[in-house]
Amino acid sequence: MGLAPDFVSSLEAIVGSAHVRRDPATREAYGVDALRRGQPADAVVTPRLTSEVAAVLRLCHDTRVPVVPRGGGTGYTGGAVPIRGGLVLSLERFNQILEIDELNLLAVVEPNVITADLQDAVERIGLFYPPDPASLHQSTIGGNVAECAGGPRAFKYGVTKRYVLGLEAVLPTGEIIETGGKSVKNVVGYDVTQLLVGSEGTLAVITKVILRLVPKPPQQATLRATFSSIEGAVDGVTRLLRARVIPAALELIDGESLAAVASHLETTALAPSGTSAVLLIEVDGFASGVDEELERIAAACRDAGATEVRVARDTAGCAELWRLRRALSSSLRVLAPLKLNHDVVVPKGRVPELFQLVSRLRTAYALRIPCFGHVGDGNIHVNILVDPADRDEVVRAQEAERALFEGVVSLEGSISGEHGIGFAKAKYLGIELAAAEVALMQRLKHAFDPHNVLNPGKIFPGDG
Amino acid sequence: MGLAPDFVSSLEAIVGSAHVRRDPATREAYGVDALRRGQPADAVVTPRLTSEVAAVLRLCHDTRVPVVPRGGGTGYTGGAVPIRGGLVLSLERFNQILEIDELNLLAVVEPNVITADLQDAVERIGLFYPPDPASLHQSTIGGNVAECAGGPRAFKYGVTKRYVLGLEAVLPTGEIIETGGKSVKNVVGYDVTQLLVGSEGTLAVITKVILRLVPKPPQQATLRATFSSIEGAVDGVTRLLRARVIPAALELIDGESLAAVASHLETTALAPSGTSAVLLIEVDGFASGVDEELERIAAACRDAGATEVRVARDTAGCAELWRLRRALSSSLRVLAPLKLNHDVVVPKGRVPELFQLVSRLRTAYALRIPCFGHVGDGNIHVNILVDPADRDEVVRAQEAERALFEGVVSLEGSISGEHGIGFAKAKYLGIELAAAEVALMQRLKHAFDPHNVLNPGKIFPGDG
Repeated sequence: MGLAPDFVSSLEAIVGSAHVRRDPATREAYGVDALRRGQPADAVVTPRLTSEVAAVLRLCHDTRVPVVPRGGGTGYTGGAVPIRGGLVLSLERFNQILEIDELNLLAVVEPNVITADLQDAVERIGLFYPPDPASLHQSTIGGNVAECAGGPRAFKYGVTKRYVLGLEAVLPTGEIIETGGKSVKNVVGYDVTQLLVGSEGTLAVITKVILRLVPKPPQQATLRATFSSIEGAVDGVTRLLRARVIPAALELIDGESLAAVASHLETTALAPSGTSAVLLIEVDGFASGVDEELERIAAACRDAGATEVRVARDTAGCAELWRLRRALSSSLRVLAPLKLNHDVVVPKGRVPELFQLVSRLRTAYALRIPCFGHVGDGNIHVNILVDPADRDEVVRAQEAERALFEGVVSLEGSISGEHGIGFAKAKYLGIELAAAEVALMQRLKHAFDPHNVLNPGKIFPGDG
Repeated sequence: MGLAPDFVSSLEAIVGSAHVRRDPATREAYGVDALRRGQPADAVVTPRLTSEVAAVLRLCHDTRVPVVPRGGGTGYTGGAVPIRGGLVLSLERFNQILEIDELNLLAVVEPNVITADLQDAVERIGLFYPPDPASLHQSTIGGNVAECAGGPRAFKYGVTKRYVLGLEAVLPTGEIIETGGKSVKNVVGYDVTQLLVGSEGTLAVITKVILRLVPKPPQQATLRATFSSIEGAVDGVTRLLRARVIPAALELIDGESLAAVASHLETTALAPSGTSAVLLIEVDGFASGVDEELERIAAACRDAGATEVRVARDTAGCAELWRLRRALSSSLRVLAPLKLNHDVVVPKGRVPELFQLVSRLRTAYALRIPCFGHVGDGNIHVNILVDPADRDEVVRAQEAERALFEGVVSLEGSISGEHGIGFAKAKYLGIELAAAEVALMQRLKHAFDPHNVLNPGKIFPGDG
């Protein structure tokens, strides 16, 4: 079922006909995100003003037409995909950095500013915006806020939510609200800002973001340590935390991922042979503090049985050590047509048990499952590699996926630390949340969106 | 109107008759908090189990009897006060530290654990729980969570919300929910944890808290700098931030507060004569980094025209420099029978304008208004001193209060950074929030508490 002619005319009256696109190529392009599953939009609308967003939402609310907000489209759970048809509301024309306030350590940006562009802009004047999702060259601040994006530096600096001071947003009923503000503390009424962060575009459309910045650390350094076992690497992490070091990033790469990169880059020089785990550790701060941290980290890794420890203090040296991590995604993409990228989390001390679980899944379901991720946060990317043409493998992958999520929850963990639920994981929500918790969240959704027009079919299983 | 006999019997059947108190002294004692305004509870109930809390709330929900959760009773806005009568549900028997997990850097505590007791317990094993509200020797973790408590260290370490990983809570309808968990990242469904933090006991009763800890910094040091003007002190803050220093605490004390302490302690040795502003700055980390930070801070303060800079690296020396700050509350209490302690926030760069505003209020309303607070966060405690017996002064203080809040909002600030709204500030909510924002928050309240039995009369003006 397409859109009624009246509806399309109303839409064109709001944003101008050039900003309502219905050609098949556009509808297809905006019908998928990084999950690569979806369905074409009925139309793609690109407003430029908050008042236009409000008018579009009011129209959708009145006519019950689904509307799905979209940023960079880099999500892994289909959050930006119009699975019920209707409109995709792309924020692509909201792409300006409005203000960088050096004195107050904050930035005001429109939602479609690319994450890396904001980082570059603030670093040029000695400031720092820490959240660094892997997609940072394509993802947008609005999408980062909607998903509560993380990244390696979340270990020291925290995820996106810690940087959002305030929002301008449009409710599904068309009202424009402002939450929080430019002050770094605010306890006036409920924290609607934090409720919108990570709500996956189901509660409101974000039209402006006030972000907290921090001073850019004067010195950065990278340390790479290799281990013959996952347990050794995790022991290294435990020891360095006991030595009171708080690295900026604390990344783990397992043997299967390492082999994939080595094969892709055609080199064996990445790590000593027999390496089953690599730790990549970044520290930052004043030069003297960085040196002391590096010493403590190196000692902790050696005490944990590291087979090699390398340190780089200059930009080129750091980049060389991070090359392995950066080449991971492209290397895995070569190995299999489809990568089911899960972002499970467990308490850090239970990471060895998580790897034992993955090891059992590899055997039980005959799958390749390279793992890497943010070990300091216990947030590991478990990549189930699949050939979609192999029906049997697809079924085995689905079974492994459920077993992974059930295992993670039994390890006191969470089925998603960064990517959200979208529609891809909605059927698994009940593994982690009890019925009373889901019912409460649905009442919250209803308080924002009584007719369920904003991004329907996401988060909640069987959402009618 | 008292409680129906049936209701009291039901209550006694849930918690045992020893834990339902209705003697006048108890009802009075639980009828006020640090605001010193309220009315006696009809009864005080002290459950020990989460299932008992659930049964009490279900009973109140069914019978429409108001129920007000209470922790340490140290709040400044009357949040724990039963202004509509009914029950005070004191969590005082929920006072156990259940778990301190050194490996995973977390603690699981019952809500009535005293903040300082938790800090002591974790520091004994080299860990650190940073939030440090001034009331930390009386306030409870549950109350800190309900109010999103701050304190001096919030500048570097953030307020309470940054440390809450998960909660067990009872909804006003009697369901027990768990939010978040032991993993440090979680984006599964809406962030109900953060919605409950700072909700002032109006959405749910917190019965368990999972808190994130950090390694205790090995070295702390304190620097005190004195200035002949507020502008000079704020310039010092700006310069040290430009030098990329992130102190643990960054406190400002104005001349009127300084005079009060000097008079109370009967000493003139606290600061050079002519001092109008004192900065107290704490830094922490590894020893070498701390030294570098101290040098940069001292240089920044001198460049901003500091009249004296003192540094202490040992415990006794630090305590001596902090003595001035610690003596503030008791010194102000001597000056006037009543201290209206407001916790307004502005963007840091607008702190001088905030002090100009206070200066105008002093003159216009003939009031003593000493100010001090967390200048790094722009969060200044504006203390309006009042003699309640002086009716004219009370009226002038009320007028000054409204003018303060209106001025703060026009400076892009917030009327509360730490203390919340309670009932004392409910009538001012509309100064900061628009009607659509208040209406949304009331719909959220309704999604939790359809009959408005949990802590009614708080936050929302004219809440029916």
